[in-house]
Amino acid sequence: MTGTTSDPVSDFKYYKGMSAAELVDALGSVGYQASNLKKAADIITRMRKDGAKIFLSFTSNMASSGLRGLFAQMIARGMVDVVITTVGSIEEDFIKAHEGKFFIGSFDEDDEALGDKGINRIGNILVPSESYQLFEKLVKPALRELIRPDASITPSELIHGLGAYCEDEDSILHQARKMGVPIYCPAITDGSMGFQLQELRNERQFQIDVVADMKNIALEAGMDDKIGIIALGGGVAKHHAILANIINGGADYAVYITTAHQHSGSLSGATTQEAKSWGKIKSEGDAVTVHGDVTLVFPLVLARVFEGLGADI
Amino acid sequence: MTGTTSDPVSDFKYYKGMSAAELVDALGSVGYQASNLKKAADIITRMRKDGAKIFLSFTSNMASSGLRGLFAQMIARGMVDVVITTVGSIEEDFIKAHEGKFFIGSFDEDDEALGDKGINRIGNILVPSESYQLFEKLVKPALRELIRPDASITPSELIHGLGAYCEDEDSILHQARKMGVPIYCPAITDGSMGFQLQELRNERQFQIDVVADMKNIALEAGMDDKIGIIALGGGVAKHHAILANIINGGADYAVYITTAHQHSGSLSGATTQEAKSWGKIKSEGDAVTVHGDVTLVFPLVLARVFEGLGADI
Amino acid sequence: MTGTTSDPVSDFKYYKGMSAAELVDALGSVGYQASNLKKAADIITRMRKDGAKIFLSFTSNMASSGLRGLFAQMIARGMVDVVITTVGSIEEDFIKAHEGKFFIGSFDEDDEALGDKGINRIGNILVPSESYQLFEKLVKPALRELIRPDASITPSELIHGLGAYCEDEDSILHQARKMGVPIYCPAITDGSMGFQLQELRNERQFQIDVVADMKNIALEAGMDDKIGIIALGGGVAKHHAILANIINGGADYAVYITTAHQHSGSLSGATTQEAKSWGKIKSEGDAVTVHGDVTLVFPLVLARVFEGLGADI
Amino acid sequence: MTGTTSDPVSDFKYYKGMSAAELVDALGSVGYQASNLKKAADIITRMRKDGAKIFLSFTSNMASSGLRGLFAQMIARGMVDVVITTVGSIEEDFIKAHEGKFFIGSFDEDDEALGDKGINRIGNILVPSESYQLFEKLVKPALRELIRPDASITPSELIHGLGAYCEDEDSILHQARKMGVPIYCPAITDGSMGFQLQELRNERQFQIDVVADMKNIALEAGMDDKIGIIALGGGVAKHHAILANIINGGADYAVYITTAHQHSGSLSGATTQEAKSWGKIKSEGDAVTVHGDVTLVFPLVLARVFEGLGADI
Repeated sequence: MTGTTSDPVSDFKYYKGMSAAELVDALGSVGYQASNLKKAADIITRMRKDGAKIFLSFTSNMASSGLRGLFAQMIARGMVDVVITTVGSIEEDFIKAHEGKFFIGSFDEDDEALGDKGINRIGNILVPSESYQLFEKLVKPALRELIRPDASITPSELIHGLGAYCEDEDSILHQARKMGVPIYCPAITDGSMGFQLQELRNERQFQIDVVADMKNIALEAGMDDKIGIIALGGGVAKHHAILANIINGGADYAVYITTAHQHSGSLSGATTQEAKSWGKIKSEGDAVTVHGDVTLVFPLVLARVFEGLGADI
Repeated sequence: MTGTTSDPVSDFKYYKGMSAAELVDALGSVGYQASNLKKAADIITRMRKDGAKIFLSFTSNMASSGLRGLFAQMIARGMVDVVITTVGSIEEDFIKAHEGKFFIGSFDEDDEALGDKGINRIGNILVPSESYQLFEKLVKPALRELIRPDASITPSELIHGLGAYCEDEDSILHQARKMGVPIYCPAITDGSMGFQLQELRNERQFQIDVVADMKNIALEAGMDDKIGIIALGGGVAKHHAILANIINGGADYAVYITTAHQHSGSLSGATTQEAKSWGKIKSEGDAVTVHGDVTLVFPLVLARVFEGLGADI
Repeated sequence: MTGTTSDPVSDFKYYKGMSAAELVDALGSVGYQASNLKKAADIITRMRKDGAKIFLSFTSNMASSGLRGLFAQMIARGMVDVVITTVGSIEEDFIKAHEGKFFIGSFDEDDEALGDKGINRIGNILVPSESYQLFEKLVKPALRELIRPDASITPSELIHGLGAYCEDEDSILHQARKMGVPIYCPAITDGSMGFQLQELRNERQFQIDVVADMKNIALEAGMDDKIGIIALGGGVAKHHAILANIINGGADYAVYITTAHQHSGSLSGATTQEAKSWGKIKSEGDAVTVHGDVTLVFPLVLARVFEGLGADI
Repeated sequence: MTGTTSDPVSDFKYYKGMSAAELVDALGSVGYQASNLKKAADIITRMRKDGAKIFLSFTSNMASSGLRGLFAQMIARGMVDVVITTVGSIEEDFIKAHEGKFFIGSFDEDDEALGDKGINRIGNILVPSESYQLFEKLVKPALRELIRPDASITPSELIHGLGAYCEDEDSILHQARKMGVPIYCPAITDGSMGFQLQELRNERQFQIDVVADMKNIALEAGMDDKIGIIALGGGVAKHHAILANIINGGADYAVYITTAHQHSGSLSGATTQEAKSWGKIKSEGDAVTVHGDVTLVFPLVLARVFEGLGADI
C-alpha cells in the first residue's frame, strides 16, 4: 500500500467475557474510527512508556459527566503531568466533591419546563440550581482564606488551594493537589468563579496573576523532554495545551478526541495533521485524531492503556 | 426531575480486567452519548427478550469494515430476522468470502498516488482494484447459474442464491442463507452488481423483480408482532427498514446509530423522536439515537447485549 | 504558497444593494466554506461552458424543501442532462404539483403531539398526512394507465410517464419530461410508490426493469464526453451518479455539497479527493466538496452560476 | 399546525439580478437551515430596532478569515455594543492592520511540506510565519507603552489601547476604539500575546486585571435593558457572552451560528433551546440556532439585516 500500513481489515467477533482492552485490540482491524481509537490507545501507552511529559486538556462539560472520576484516576495513577481546562470543570468538580447532584436526563427535555423547576440542562445531563448555589456558598469562604488582602495569586495556585477543600477520592482537584499536578485555567473568570472573585474584590484588593501562569506552563516541559498531548474536545483548553508546547519544539505524541471537524477552520476541529504545519506536533510525531464523543471513546481508550501499562490501576 | 429519569451521574473508574459489558454498564451513568450507548444496549436486549421481529439495516461501508464479522455473528446467533442493506455490502461480503483483500490505511492518503497504484480508498480502508476484479470474475458465472433465461427473481432471492457461493463462517450471506434470514436490497443495481446484471442481459432475458420484494418485506412482520429496528447509518437501508414497518403500526423498539444530524432534514439524520410524528415508531416505543461512528459504538453495544442474553455467543 | 493558490484572504464588507452573485464573489476570499462555495460556483459554470454532460443527484428531503423549484428551474434552463434521486423526490414533487401542502415548523416540535394530529415531520418541515393520501389517490390511476398488463417498464420510463400528470411549471417531473431529461431512481420501491406498485401487482402482471436503466444511465455519457457531477447530499443518488460515470473514465468536474464527513467511511461523506483514488473523478479533475446544508449553500451557488452564464434565467 | 407556524414551503426560483437580501427572504420558505438563516436575520433586525444591547461573540479563526471586515463594519455601523472573543482575534486583526499576509489554500495541503516552508495552516487559510513574527515585532513596543511599570490594566483596556496602533478602517480594534465598543477577552494569555506579556514581566512588574473585567462586562447591560446575543461559533467567547447576561435576567434575543451539535454536551453545540433551561435566554425570548459554517451563513444574514435596517451601510 502507501507505506503507512499494510494491516488487513479483520472481522470483529465477540466472544463471551471479552474484556474492554481486548475489544479495543480487535477494533484496531475494523477500520474508520474503531481503528483510530486503537491507535489512540497505542500512542498514549507509548507516550507513557517513553517517559513523556503528558498534558491533558478537557472541556468543562466532561467534568459535568462521569468522566470526572476517570480524570481523577489518571492523575492518581501518575499518568498526567499537567492539566488544562476551563473554569466550569473546577466548579463542577468542587460541587461533586461536596455532594452536589447531577442527573441523567434526555436531549429532548422541555427546556422551558425545566427552567421553571430550577433545573439546568447540559446535553442530557440535568443539574438542579441548588448544586450551583452550593458552589457559591462553599467557595466564598474558601476564596477568602486562599486570597489574602493585597495578594497576587495565579489561577493554578488558586486551584491548588481549592484542592484542599475537596476530600473526595474521585475529585480532580483532590488528586491533582495530592500528586502535585498543576491545573491551568487560562480563562479563570469565565464562570460562577468570575462572579465570586469579583465580589471578593469588593472586600479587598488582590490580583489573579494570569501572566505568571504563562511562564509556569511554558516551563512544565523543556527542550529535552518528550512531550505528549491528550486533547479532549476543543476550545481554549486544547489551544493552551498546544500553545504551551510550541516553544519547546512541539509534541512528540498527540491524541485529539473531538466531535468537531476541520472544515470551519476552528481550532476545536483542527487535526493532528494540521498541527504539523505549525510545528505544534513534530513532523515525525506520533499522532491521531479520533472523531467521536469523548464520553464514548475515552473510557475505552483508557481501558487499553491501563492494561497495557500493566501496573496497578 | 422531569419524570424521564432520576438516575444520578456517577464517576467512571476503570478497574483491572473490566469486561466490555461492565464498561457499558458503567457508561450508563456517565452522560451524553455514553449514556445513550448503554440505553441502546438495553433496548436491543429488551427487543430480543420480548421476541420482537428484528430488522437490521446497515450501509455498505460497514461491510467494508470489520463489522462484517459481527453482523454474521448476530445472524448466526439468531438475533436478526431481516437484513436490509445496499448492494455494496453484498459485493464486499462476497469478495471477503473469497479472500479478497482490504487494508487499514489513513484518512490522509495521497489519493492521486493511490489511484495510480490501483488502490481505492473508503475512509481509512484501502481496497486494491484486484479485490473488485475478483468479484467480477466470480460473480458472473454465479449469476449465470442463478438467473435462468426468462427467469424472474427478486433481489432477496438472488442474494439468497449468492449465499451458497460463500462458505466463510464470517460471511453475512453465508449465515443469512443458513439461518433463513432474508436480505433485502432495494437498490440492487447500484454497484458493480448492476453492471454484471446488465451484461448478463446481453446474453439472455430475465427480470429482477423489485416489486415482489416489497410485498415480501411487508409480510416479514404482522400487526400482532412486536417489531424492533436497529438502523446503523442512514440511506435507503435505514429508510426501507422503517418503511416496511410503518404499515404494521410502527416499531415497538428502535435503535439508530448515526453520525448524521437532523438539521439538514435528511432521513439519515432523522432521530427516533422525529419518527414518532410519522408513526414509524410507536409513541410509547422504546427508542434511542446514538450519535457516533458505528464501528466504535456497535461492538460495544453488542458486547453488553450478548452478555445480557446470557446464552452461548 | 504550495502552488495550489496564492490568493490573499480579503476582508468582506457589505454594500447596499449587493447582489447574491456579487456576495458569492466576495466570499471567495473569505476562507473556509465560503471559499469552497465560490469554488463550487466556478466549477459548475466551467462544466456548463465546457459543454459537459451534467449529472445532478439529490436526496428526497430536498424535494420536500423549496429547492424543488430551483431544480425544476435548472432543468428548464438546460443546465442538467441527467437527474438521479430517491423515490421520495418523485412522490413529493407529484404531491406539490397537485397542491399538496408542506409547512415550515421547527426542529423542536412535540413529535408525539404531531403524530396525534396526523402531521409528519421532516426536520423543520411539517407534512399533513392528507398530502400523502393525495399522492396515493392520484398515483393509483396514473400507474394503471402507465403500466399496461404484462408490460416491462424501467423506473426512468415510469417517471417520465408520471411527468405528464404534473402541469406545474415548478415541477421537476414536468420540466424533465418537457426537456427530455431522464430521471433515474435506482430504489424505485423505497417509498409509498413501492406499496402502490405492489398493489397494482395484485391486479396485473408487469415488471419494473431496473436492469435496463443501468444500461441507459451508462450510455448517457460516452468516453468522448466531458462529464460533470453535482451531488447534493449523499446516499444512493450520489453513489449512482458517480457509479454511472466510472466506466466512462470518471468525471472531469465535480461539486459535492454535504453535511456528512468522511470519518465514518460513508459514501455520503466521501470527498471529491477520495473519489480520485477510485478514478471516480479524474486526477486532474476540477472538484470541490462544500460542507454545509444544501438549502443554504445551493441557492447561493446557483445565483452565481446563473449570472455567470449570462443568458436568460 | 402546532401553533409555531403555518407558513407554507415555497419553491425557490432565482431571477436575474436577485439581491442577497432578496435571496435570504426567499430562503425563509425553503426549510431546514435556509429557513433558520432567514429567522436569524429577522431576529437580529428586531433586536436592533428594539434598541437591545447587542453582545457579539466570535472565535479567532473568524478573524483569520475575511469576516474580520464584516465585524469591523458592524461595529462602525453601530450594530454592536460589546465584543467578546479569544486573543487570536486580537493578534490577527493587529497583524492584518499592519499588512501581514493570509492566503487561501486548501484543506488537503501537505502539512509537513508546509511546515518546512514556514507556512501555518488554519483550515484552508495559510499564514506565513512572518505574519506572526510581524506581530511579535510590533506588539512588544506597544505593550511597553501601554503597560507602565506597576500598572494594573484589564484585558479590555489593553485591547482598547492596542486599537490606537491600528489605523486600518477594516480593523476590528480600530473601529471598536473609535466607536467606544469594549472588546472582552477572558483568556488574554492564550496566544502569542501571553508570551509577549510574560516577557514584559521580565522587565517590569504589572498586573493584567481579569477580575475587574468581570465587573465591567456584567455592567454593560442592566436589568432594564433589552439584551441581544449573537454568538458565532462556540468556546469561551460564546460562554462569556451568555454568562455576562445571565445575571441580568438572560437574553431577549439570541442568534447562535455553529457547526457544533448538542450531542456531546459541549457549550459550543448547546442550542438556544437548551439555554432556556438555564435562564440564559428568557422563556419567551426570540431565538434561533443556525447550523452551518459562519463564513457561509453570516454574510448572508447580515446582507438582510443591513438592508432591513434601511440606513446607510
